[in-house]
Order: sequence, then C-alpha cells, then structure tokens
Amino acid sequence: MTTVKLVEYAEASAEVRAVFDDIMATRKTDWINNFWKALAHHPPTLRRTWDSVKSVMAPGALDARTKEMVYLAVSATNGCAYCVASHTASARRHGMTDAMLGELMAVVGMANETNRLADGYQIEIDEAFRTPLA
Amino acid sequence: MTTVKLVEYAEASAEVRAVFDDIMATRKTDWINNFWKALAHHPPTLRRTWDSVKSVMAPGALDARTKEMVYLAVSATNGCAYCVASHTASARRHGMTDAMLGELMAVVGMANETNRLADGYQIEIDEAFRTPLA
Amino acid sequence: MTTVKLVEYAEASAEVRAVFDDIMATRKTDWINNFWKALAHHPPTLRRTWDSVKSVMAPGALDARTKEMVYLAVSATNGCAYCVASHTASARRHGMTDAMLGELMAVVGMANETNRLADGYQIEIDEAFRTPLA
Amino acid sequence: MTTVKLVEYAEASAEVRAVFDDIMATRKTDWINNFWKALAHHPPTLRRTWDSVKSVMAPGALDARTKEMVYLAVSATNGCAYCVASHTASARRHGMTDAMLGELMAVVGMANETNRLADGYQIEIDEAFRTPLA
Amino acid sequence: MTTVKLVEYAEASAEVRAVFDDIMATRKTDWINNFWKALAHHPPTLRRTWDSVKSVMAPGALDARTKEMVYLAVSATNGCAYCVASHTASARRHGMTDAMLGELMAVVGMANETNRLADGYQIEIDEAFRTPLA
Amino acid sequence: MTTVKLVEYAEASAEVRAVFDDIMATRKTDWINNFWKALAHHPPTLRRTWDSVKSVMAPGALDARTKEMVYLAVSATNGCAYCVASHTASARRHGMTDAMLGELMAVVGMANETNRLADGYQIEIDEAFRTPLA
Repeated sequence: MTTVKLVEYAEASAEVRAVFDDIMATRKTDWINNFWKALAHHPPTLRRTWDSVKSVMAPGALDARTKEMVYLAVSATNGCAYCVASHTASARRHGMTDAMLGELMAVVGMANETNRLADGYQIEIDEAFRTPLA
Repeated sequence: MTTVKLVEYAEASAEVRAVFDDIMATRKTDWINNFWKALAHHPPTLRRTWDSVKSVMAPGALDARTKEMVYLAVSATNGCAYCVASHTASARRHGMTDAMLGELMAVVGMANETNRLADGYQIEIDEAFRTPLA
Repeated sequence: MTTVKLVEYAEASAEVRAVFDDIMATRKTDWINNFWKALAHHPPTLRRTWDSVKSVMAPGALDARTKEMVYLAVSATNGCAYCVASHTASARRHGMTDAMLGELMAVVGMANETNRLADGYQIEIDEAFRTPLA
Repeated sequence: MTTVKLVEYAEASAEVRAVFDDIMATRKTDWINNFWKALAHHPPTLRRTWDSVKSVMAPGALDARTKEMVYLAVSATNGCAYCVASHTASARRHGMTDAMLGELMAVVGMANETNRLADGYQIEIDEAFRTPLA
Repeated sequence: MTTVKLVEYAEASAEVRAVFDDIMATRKTDWINNFWKALAHHPPTLRRTWDSVKSVMAPGALDARTKEMVYLAVSATNGCAYCVASHTASARRHGMTDAMLGELMAVVGMANETNRLADGYQIEIDEAFRTPLA
Repeated sequence: MTTVKLVEYAEASAEVRAVFDDIMATRKTDWINNFWKALAHHPPTLRRTWDSVKSVMAPGALDARTKEMVYLAVSATNGCAYCVASHTASARRHGMTDAMLGELMAVVGMANETNRLADGYQIEIDEAFRTPLA
C-alpha cells in the first residue's frame, strides 16, 4: 500500500546503507522498519530525518521513555496509525508499563477534549498566563 | 471574545461555587482561570470536566510534571492557544525547566513531521509492531 | 491581519456585487461579513463557495439549526476562531439556546476525547459496524 | 492490531463487569464493542469514560439522534475510522436516514472547506460576532 | 467498509450517470473510482462536488500538476488515506516524478514540524507580516 | 504572548549569532523574524531546524515558489496563524500573484472538503490506487 517502493538493505546504495547501519547500531537491533525503507527512496530526506530523530530522541533534560511517550501522545492526537504502532512498541521497549500507557492515553484524551472546549468557546487567555519566562 | 458569559465567583450558583472551591483547594490557589468560568455557563459540563481533570492529572504511574508536559504536547499539536498558554504555566509550576520545554517542543515538532511522512507515503505497519502486549 | 484586501460593496465589481446581493437577500440582512469580503478577491471562489453554502445549509432532511450546530461542532474541532465566532452567531439566530450550546460542546468534547482514545489504542473495528446499509 | 489486549466479559474483573453490565443495560443490547473492551485494560479510564458518555449522550436540550450526528461529524473531521464506523451505526439506530447522512456529510465537508479558507486568509473576526450572549 | 452503498454505473439513475459520464469524459478514462460511487448515494453532493473539483482543478494561474501536488500535501497533512492514494496517482499521471514526490513530502514534513513549533511557543506575528497586499 | 523569551541578536550567544547570520545571508535580508528568535532559546533546535528548512526549501525538482505555496497550503490546513502570515509573505516574495493565491486556497479548501467526505464515508481504496511505482 506504501506509495513508494520500500528500499531493502540488499539493494540499497552505499549512501542509504550508511544510514541503515547507523539506525541499527544506535538501536542495537538488526532490522530496519518500513518507515526508513520508505524514506530511503529519497536519500536526502532519509539522512536528514534520521539525524534529527537520533539527536532529538537521545536522553537529555528529558529521559528517553518520556520522549517516546510524548511522541506517542502526538501520534495518537494526529491519528497516525503507523506512528502509534511503532512508538507504542518503542515506549514499551523503554519501560512504559500498561499502567503508564493507561494514564498516558487518559491525559491525551482529556487534553483533546478540553482543547476543543477552549476553542469552541473561544476562551480568552487570562492575563496571568501571558508572561513569558526567561 | 469568549462566546459565553464568564461566570464570576460572586455571581455563581452554589453548585458552581462548590466546583470553584474544589479547584482552588486542589490547586492551592485563590483564583479561577477563564476556562472554568466559561464552562460554568453549563454546570454539568463544569462538574464532569473538573472531576475528570482532577482524577486524570493526579500523580500515579506518571508524575504530575510528565502529565502536564504531555498535555502541552497535545495542545501544541492541536494549535489550541488557550491550552498552550495555561499548560505551559502549569508545567513550569510543576518544575518544567527551559531545557525541558526546549526538548519537549523538539519532540513535538519531530513527531508532527514524521506522522505526516508516514501518512503521506501510506507506510505499511511492520508485522513486528502488530502484536499487542498483555 | 487578513492576508488579502477585503472587498467592500462600494468598490466591488458587478460580478462580486451580484453575489453580495444574493447573500444579503438570502439572509435577510443588509451587511456582508468579512469572510465573503475576503473571498471576493478571487471572484470564482466567492461565487462557487456561496452557491455551495447556500444550497448545503438550506433546510432539507435536517433543519437549518441542526446544520448550523454541526457547522459549529466541526469549526470547534478544527479550532477555526473565525468560523466558531460566525457560526455561534448563526446558530443562535436559528434558535440555539445556551442549554443547547452547552450540550453541543459537551458532545464535541467527548467525541474529540474518544476519537483519540480509539486512535491511540488502534482499536479494531467490530465486524458488526462493517455492514454498509442501502 | 489494537495495542492493548481486549478484555472479554468472561475474564473481566468485577469492576469491569459492572461497567459492561451498565453499558448493555443502557443500550438494551447484549454485546460490548471493542472500544470498551480496549479501555477495560485501564479500569479507571473505562469507568470515567463510560460515565461521561452516558451522561453527555442522554437526550436533553438536544435529542439523542442529533447528538449522534454531531459525534459522527466530529469523528469524520478527525478522520477517526473506528468512531466513524461506530457512530454511523449508532446514528442509524437512532433514526438517521440516508438523506440525513447525505446532508450531514455535505455540511461537514463545507465546514472543513470554509474553516481552511478562513484560516488560510487569516480573516479578521467581524465586530458583530464578538459580543457574547448571556 | 464504506458506510454507504457504492453506486455502480449500471444501476445509477440518469442524474448520477450524467455526472459519471462527465467525470470519464473530462479525465479521458473509462472508469469511476469509489469516491464518486460513494457520493452518488446523495446526488446533490455528487453533482456539487464534481462541479467544484472540475472547476478548481482545471489549469489556470497554477498548472494541473502543481494543483495535484497541493491536494496531496493537504491530504497527507490530514492523514486521509483514500485521498493520499488517489492524489498520488493523479499527481503521477500529471508528471510528478519520484524526485518531486520526495521534495514535496520533505516540505510537507517540515511545514508540519514548524507549524507546531510556532503554535507550541505561541510565537507573535511580526509586524512585517501583517500588511495585506492589494 | 510568546511563551519563551525572544532572543535578540545583540544579546545572542556566538552559536545563535552564527545561525542568525546564515539566515540573513541566505535570505538576503537584514532582519530575523520572531520564529527564529523564539527557537533561539534552545540552540540545538534553532540550528537543526534552520539547517533542515534551508536544505528542504532550496530549489530542486520543485522550484522555490511551489515549495512556498505547499508550505502555505499545509499551514492553512493546520490553522497555524504565524505560519500562514510568514509563508504568505515568502510566497509573494517568490512571485506568487493574487491569482495564484486565489487558486491555491481554492485547492486547499476543496482538498479539506473531500478529505473529510472520504473519511466520513470510510471509502475503500480502489485496487487501481494500490500499486506503488518504482
């Protein structure tokens, strides 16, 4: 169904293989999921996207599990089935328990509900919320 | 601009005041933000929404700060200005630093980018992502 | 702030005036709101959009008030401030009471919440929901 | 494909069964659809969501059929396949005819079109739409 | 899975056949895709939608290929699988190459990322961007 | 209103100034718009986002004006006011005429309408649209 040909490792160019190798090394795994095989049809997008994901998802002020759960929250909000599937798996690999998933989805649900209530009533932003912090 | 009249405490019914009192007690604050004043025009929605928010946002398997950051991530994804403003403030109150906010938004941005790449190429879900866990 | 010049009646071409006249006659009003003044910068879009809105919003199997409330529900879900403002006004003109607005927004909120829960868990569609009706 | 295990009645806890029983009694049916079986993996979300749906969807100032159609309109706007399937079925059960469905989708389509025109031109809100009503 | 019966040419009314004939003549093809067969259950929506699509997608100040690519960009952003599939096919028929598709999706991805960064930080619009042009 | 402090050139670190300088050189302009000043509060996001935008928006298989119009189409679909404002300005600078803008928004409107009709009827993807091309 994918609208571009999935590029398999065996047939990939050296440029694409270099990215695939880095993905597998970084994730300590020996397979490449379809997302990267699809992006590989356009090597500059593959390279740029992987570099960004690698750097953004590395632990920093937020740990990797929290980042995966935020990714999943956004993907659920956008209704992206592929991303929900892949990031549910990633988040579980990083230690998300069923209880955490349950609470995560509860927050996602509430946020989506109240976002639309705020937009539906066009609620004015309180002065107290307008001060940016340094 | 709000499309309904904001209900102030002084003019609120006993039913609405009971919710307002609980909000202020739970949050250890002495003011009510516009979101609740707007919902107060329809008391059953005010009561139900507050009960849900109170229970969903309480610390559990996820801590309160993580929940606030997930709320903010969803609100940014939906482009809800009111909710972004109020939950940025809440997340900061719960200890979100500027570094955390920077990383949070970086994840939100990446997730929104890759969600659309996955949808735009209609990428097929890998078999490995299809097994639900108990 | 509008990114195109708003076309006022006095300066409008005959083609645009014909549409403006029909809008005012259909709505039994003597003013044109900004939406149509903005579309007037591209007359074919003005004509086509008005013809569509006029025909779609006319009472049929659904009455005009129900249609306005559905329009408002969609606009709230999309977070379109202009459309929320204008269709809240229209729905009220067609008899939407505060109680109806309160229940409408409660349904909009719940639907947005459960939509994301269904997407977030990738819930499989029950066989019973798959049979189309004639 | 669901990312959590669907909880069947036979294996459900007493807490979950109580909700399932109430769903079946309220809807005068003898089966539970997958949405509730999925939520059952996190009992507090099951209980809270069902209580909210039950109260929000009960007839009030708006009748049940109108509420189901609004739910469907939101679900179509969000592109939630599960919710479109289940709420098309519910709306039909509440008497939505093919003619009503045709008009409903026509309104949903128009609203989505004009929402984006308003946002795409950043049309300024008319003063006349800014006055909230009591 | 479609929630309405797909109307085949053989069983279509004269009104529906007239639209189907125009679609096939305009597109120089001898088949009708499911989108139009589904809309045919509500003939006024079929007629109005086809007339609009035909007029909007005709070459003008923008050529047909650019219009198809914009259609695809919007469909990817909305996550509409049907529309992504059909407009990827249309855009290719109008000469979109794999390199163009790769760059198109890269732009769609970046726009979705930066849209959410702008919304997530509630960035104030620069004065320089506020002047509409004639 | 921006939720982070806008970083002005005069107070920027060397790291941030290097990016600002590159933005101004690339765009042959002597000012920095608020988007970049806001991202500058988190230098890695500023650097990564600018590098991506610079590379993605450079002319290639698609010219710069087409890319700017696609960016605007996505921003209108997401309802991102900041991005609509800034990319309308950019697209005009790259030669988008009022006639092109009118046709662009007409396509954006139609795509949003038909996306929701396709989702609202859950229209099955035709076999003919399922074959990926090399």
